[in-house]
Amino acid sequence: MALNRRLTAVWPWRLLIAALIATAPIQPAWTGETPAVDMKSDSCGDTTGLPKGVKPWWPSRYGADDQIGTLNEITPAVVLNAVRLVKTGNVVDLGRILDEDTPKFPGRYWHQTVDVSAPYTNLRRSDTVGQGWGKNQINWITEIQVGTFQVGTQLDSIGHIQIGDRFYNGWRDRDVVEEWGLNHFGMESVPPIITRGVLIDIAAYKGMQRLKPGYVISLADVRGALAKENVSVHAGDAVLFHTGWGGLWDRDNKTFLSGEPGPGMEVVRWLYAHRIALTGADTWSYGPVPGEDLDRPFLVPQTMYVKLGLFGLENLATEGLAKRKVYEFLFALTHHKTRGSTAAIIAPAAVY
Amino acid sequence: MALNRRLTAVWPWRLLIAALIATAPIQPAWTGETPAVDMKSDSCGDTTGLPKGVKPWWPSRYGADDQIGTLNEITPAVVLNAVRLVKTGNVVDLGRILDEDTPKFPGRYWHQTVDVSAPYTNLRRSDTVGQGWGKNQINWITEIQVGTFQVGTQLDSIGHIQIGDRFYNGWRDRDVVEEWGLNHFGMESVPPIITRGVLIDIAAYKGMQRLKPGYVISLADVRGALAKENVSVHAGDAVLFHTGWGGLWDRDNKTFLSGEPGPGMEVVRWLYAHRIALTGADTWSYGPVPGEDLDRPFLVPQTMYVKLGLFGLENLATEGLAKRKVYEFLFALTHHKTRGSTAAIIAPAAVY
Amino acid sequence: MALNRRLTAVWPWRLLIAALIATAPIQPAWTGETPAVDMKSDSCGDTTGLPKGVKPWWPSRYGADDQIGTLNEITPAVVLNAVRLVKTGNVVDLGRILDEDTPKFPGRYWHQTVDVSAPYTNLRRSDTVGQGWGKNQINWITEIQVGTFQVGTQLDSIGHIQIGDRFYNGWRDRDVVEEWGLNHFGMESVPPIITRGVLIDIAAYKGMQRLKPGYVISLADVRGALAKENVSVHAGDAVLFHTGWGGLWDRDNKTFLSGEPGPGMEVVRWLYAHRIALTGADTWSYGPVPGEDLDRPFLVPQTMYVKLGLFGLENLATEGLAKRKVYEFLFALTHHKTRGSTAAIIAPAAVY
Amino acid sequence: MALNRRLTAVWPWRLLIAALIATAPIQPAWTGETPAVDMKSDSCGDTTGLPKGVKPWWPSRYGADDQIGTLNEITPAVVLNAVRLVKTGNVVDLGRILDEDTPKFPGRYWHQTVDVSAPYTNLRRSDTVGQGWGKNQINWITEIQVGTFQVGTQLDSIGHIQIGDRFYNGWRDRDVVEEWGLNHFGMESVPPIITRGVLIDIAAYKGMQRLKPGYVISLADVRGALAKENVSVHAGDAVLFHTGWGGLWDRDNKTFLSGEPGPGMEVVRWLYAHRIALTGADTWSYGPVPGEDLDRPFLVPQTMYVKLGLFGLENLATEGLAKRKVYEFLFALTHHKTRGSTAAIIAPAAVY
Repeated sequence: MALNRRLTAVWPWRLLIAALIATAPIQPAWTGETPAVDMKSDSCGDTTGLPKGVKPWWPSRYGADDQIGTLNEITPAVVLNAVRLVKTGNVVDLGRILDEDTPKFPGRYWHQTVDVSAPYTNLRRSDTVGQGWGKNQINWITEIQVGTFQVGTQLDSIGHIQIGDRFYNGWRDRDVVEEWGLNHFGMESVPPIITRGVLIDIAAYKGMQRLKPGYVISLADVRGALAKENVSVHAGDAVLFHTGWGGLWDRDNKTFLSGEPGPGMEVVRWLYAHRIALTGADTWSYGPVPGEDLDRPFLVPQTMYVKLGLFGLENLATEGLAKRKVYEFLFALTHHKTRGSTAAIIAPAAVY
Repeated sequence: MALNRRLTAVWPWRLLIAALIATAPIQPAWTGETPAVDMKSDSCGDTTGLPKGVKPWWPSRYGADDQIGTLNEITPAVVLNAVRLVKTGNVVDLGRILDEDTPKFPGRYWHQTVDVSAPYTNLRRSDTVGQGWGKNQINWITEIQVGTFQVGTQLDSIGHIQIGDRFYNGWRDRDVVEEWGLNHFGMESVPPIITRGVLIDIAAYKGMQRLKPGYVISLADVRGALAKENVSVHAGDAVLFHTGWGGLWDRDNKTFLSGEPGPGMEVVRWLYAHRIALTGADTWSYGPVPGEDLDRPFLVPQTMYVKLGLFGLENLATEGLAKRKVYEFLFALTHHKTRGSTAAIIAPAAVY
Repeated sequence: MALNRRLTAVWPWRLLIAALIATAPIQPAWTGETPAVDMKSDSCGDTTGLPKGVKPWWPSRYGADDQIGTLNEITPAVVLNAVRLVKTGNVVDLGRILDEDTPKFPGRYWHQTVDVSAPYTNLRRSDTVGQGWGKNQINWITEIQVGTFQVGTQLDSIGHIQIGDRFYNGWRDRDVVEEWGLNHFGMESVPPIITRGVLIDIAAYKGMQRLKPGYVISLADVRGALAKENVSVHAGDAVLFHTGWGGLWDRDNKTFLSGEPGPGMEVVRWLYAHRIALTGADTWSYGPVPGEDLDRPFLVPQTMYVKLGLFGLENLATEGLAKRKVYEFLFALTHHKTRGSTAAIIAPAAVY
Repeated sequence: MALNRRLTAVWPWRLLIAALIATAPIQPAWTGETPAVDMKSDSCGDTTGLPKGVKPWWPSRYGADDQIGTLNEITPAVVLNAVRLVKTGNVVDLGRILDEDTPKFPGRYWHQTVDVSAPYTNLRRSDTVGQGWGKNQINWITEIQVGTFQVGTQLDSIGHIQIGDRFYNGWRDRDVVEEWGLNHFGMESVPPIITRGVLIDIAAYKGMQRLKPGYVISLADVRGALAKENVSVHAGDAVLFHTGWGGLWDRDNKTFLSGEPGPGMEVVRWLYAHRIALTGADTWSYGPVPGEDLDRPFLVPQTMYVKLGLFGLENLATEGLAKRKVYEFLFALTHHKTRGSTAAIIAPAAVY
């Protein structure tokens, strides 16, 4: 596949991302194995085929070649401030357990099957003694997993959504799609995320166990809740919303998937203006469903990913933080780096 | 499946893990959605069928009901000390990218295929305008992934290996195996790991680019390297070994998989005595291959997982830390909580 | 895998099946690529561990080394007689369409996802002209399928079921199980089946649209229905039962899977005595559910596969034949030869 | 998915295919569960976007609504003539065994893993006696299979290939692509195939063990070989070519996949003019590779599927017939009817 992966791309490959980042206005915190890419594409010079009234949204705030969007905001200084928030050393798991029964968006699935063949095949090895391989009688068990990503608690790649056939920074399907996934914006391009986390408990602010489906979280809600919590947001933050909707997970999956409350467009623009790094909620998507504009489905994540390069998290288990009234914490998210994936199955941690 | 999952288990189910942990000698740091289990089993009272010379290794140091082994050592105090190690805010990614070509143990595989059907099916919606769904012309791309776990950079569950048909704490295959995975020791039972990390650069200590396959890292090596690095290990640490073997990854996969250097039994016992929480290396397994005792294959991880409950990490990208001579750091590992899995595909981060 | 496949087997491998069959009392009709196996096993000499009151059922009627059971009955003469039954040249499809929504036994699943990446990747080839690869603008579409076998209209391997850990001819799990499937009794060992087919319409005989779940088809029913149809059974036949239960397929899947009518033990022994080659029905398993003996679940297929080596078919679309009152026909079943599988997804044809 | 499947299609659904076929000039032989579709599409009226010099190839010879192309030629009379060819009752298997090691086109794969969990979970049932469920101690083994279709011996759907984004009868990707496969031309729409088979042994005619890669089988070759075999082709036939290339299968997979001999465009047009129903060979594709026109890759199958609706078979095990000099036979192919698939894994049989 390696060969194929390279041949199907017409652009030169293998310039160091380090070189790219060196020209960016901000120096992100992370170092590691990352795909080296030259992001120049003819598509970006061509601005035809956009929806009526939509102007080119590129180049992005982080440069024409950028593919990590608002994660650029997580500088070493941001990381350093974040770790200083830890006062007790307690860790709250923000991930939900994934299995084949947990609620999933239509078309998504995940199955796992145990592989207990080794306890049989090891019995046939010539040096088997008793019940396994060798005098130590070793056996092992593995499993097969099959499914889509975009299930469970997840981190989306900004490549997951498009406007027509265009991605963040103006790239097009014809530039990016490979048989094995996306050649840009895959999870391997997304750094581990260690930053300050903020929980905005809108349910508590509104005095409700959970917000209604389609409820549009307003900027006034956000400001009011933050004031109540005595917290403010900073550049590089992970801003998480507790809507209470996650309480339906595995209790009433049908209702859970039927809609959701979420931040409206006004809030998203405000988050972007405040240069936050990523945002998430205890809902299966991000933003109200049904949305503010019925003619524009899923406009919130579409705007976030494609126009702004603002990363989103879904199905967060925010209730642990809400219950403890922990509104400020070290947010840690280290995800699998499967090449070309549009999402990762995750379980971030809040440390306070 | 939920029904099946419960019916096939004969033991009472659903005691709170909180209750169990309350009786444990140590209070781990984390809180979150965890499987509630009653760990009592008739198997543990029965000590028949063990390999010659092997005595029952249970109950474990953390109690007869424990299933997280040495991760119990990560207390809030340990977490608090770990975050205080961060001086610069730099983040080093310790994960390797996974794709179908990266090296895998025989029998393991991983494939991903892009799903770009939405750009076609959205064209047929009644409210489509132009190139996608709605006036915002939204489209999305997902993917199908299929494969085994136990691939790429990974965290093993201590349920991955057995002695004969016995697990950690004496449980047996007949108690633990479900069609969908393991009903104990699955990744959903493993907490997010935020702790102090230590890198022991044995390659540098021995003045080699990489150790030889089958090289047994001795306790003297470990002590010498630590002295050279001016670092010591503490209870709750993540102790990582740089052997240089990972330099073969994706460069010479055949040699990479043909064997590996690794810590010997003496080192493992020493790590356990020092109450470290987990250990890992830049190799595809953990421990020398071929091993110290040719009649006992993979004795190191077998002892770690089954007898000690000591967690292991594989295929770590340790070279970033080694190059920077970062030997002490905040280690963050938040992994997918797929129910019943014996491993997670991970990319931990070191923050220094 | 090839290496692994061979190493894990301790018995000598690669004697020609031709040699084995040469010693069998019957010469089956087919020739083709088949797995060459030496069927000798120490397990067969050991008769311990059988259920109370059960005596060794091996060697089979077709020899100690046989793995195709009653399919041995399909001789060239049987085939020749079968094709002579065709009078009109009409073909009735006996298979049901399989998709992710069709009814499945708990734990079984099947998913398919389209792969339309080529229309994008072909656009990036250097010799692309317009909308595809080359001047002929070629594109292609494929798909990913994942799932268990044992779904939809199916042919079971006689290796699918065991008594304890014993198979047909006394083999044990420890002899037969490989990571990739079964090293004996896999679908690759099952010949294409061209033989005489007989439909026994028990629903019509009983004057019912469909039999009740748990209804035990008796030998009297069989004899009565055959007399009414003016048909008899012969050695080598495929004997199919129409119970009407299949009318629930995709109409009321919950009821469909809740039980089923089927031939009782008396009928199975009679079919075996008449040396039929295989038998099937329009039900998800074969035999009544609940069964005749509540302490012995699925005793009918267990007896057929393990003790008798009598092959079974499930989820047949028998209504087309029943409606046309076609009771005698050429039965054609050519199935995928996936190595080591315990079943094939099929759609046999009746030609009359 | 059922809901989704219907909502994403904008055309009315559920007219009986019987009604459609009633208007076709030919009455095919088969009856059975088939997808009911209304094939009208706006795409067919629009003839824009074709490659330079290519004129609309629709409506097809079998009508604008047809989706089974040349399989329409298999009438009851054809079937009746075919069964009369059987003289000895011998059956030759034309399928090759599929496993993860058998040769596959780049991007295609297939994996199977055994599921032996039941022997463990059955031990925990309350009515278990000894080694399995119930007093009959039943256990079972299944497997998980994952992969692409388009592997092994296969039958292609005519929907597998396009010219630009156009299919047979002028349909377009935007009409046909669903997340779960193709809503037209899927394997569920392809009837079981019982017809006369003809083997044309070009290798023997040319006096070679196997033809060279890229060798273009000419019409003169075909006529010469048929004359030597004393056989002619008829409407409705399955015409199979023995090139000897299949002898490399599993012996030298690299060479096998590096190219292939095959019928040229002239032969395909001649087959179509003779109204044959389908054609196949012992090669991984059909037609010479490299092809006759280097600017037009895979022009032979593209023409067959898209323009002509002529079905193709790949990786046939033709050597059994060639060795026996069986050139005329009953050809039986009954394939899995997985909804929306572009191919089936098959093992057809020749009966002579």
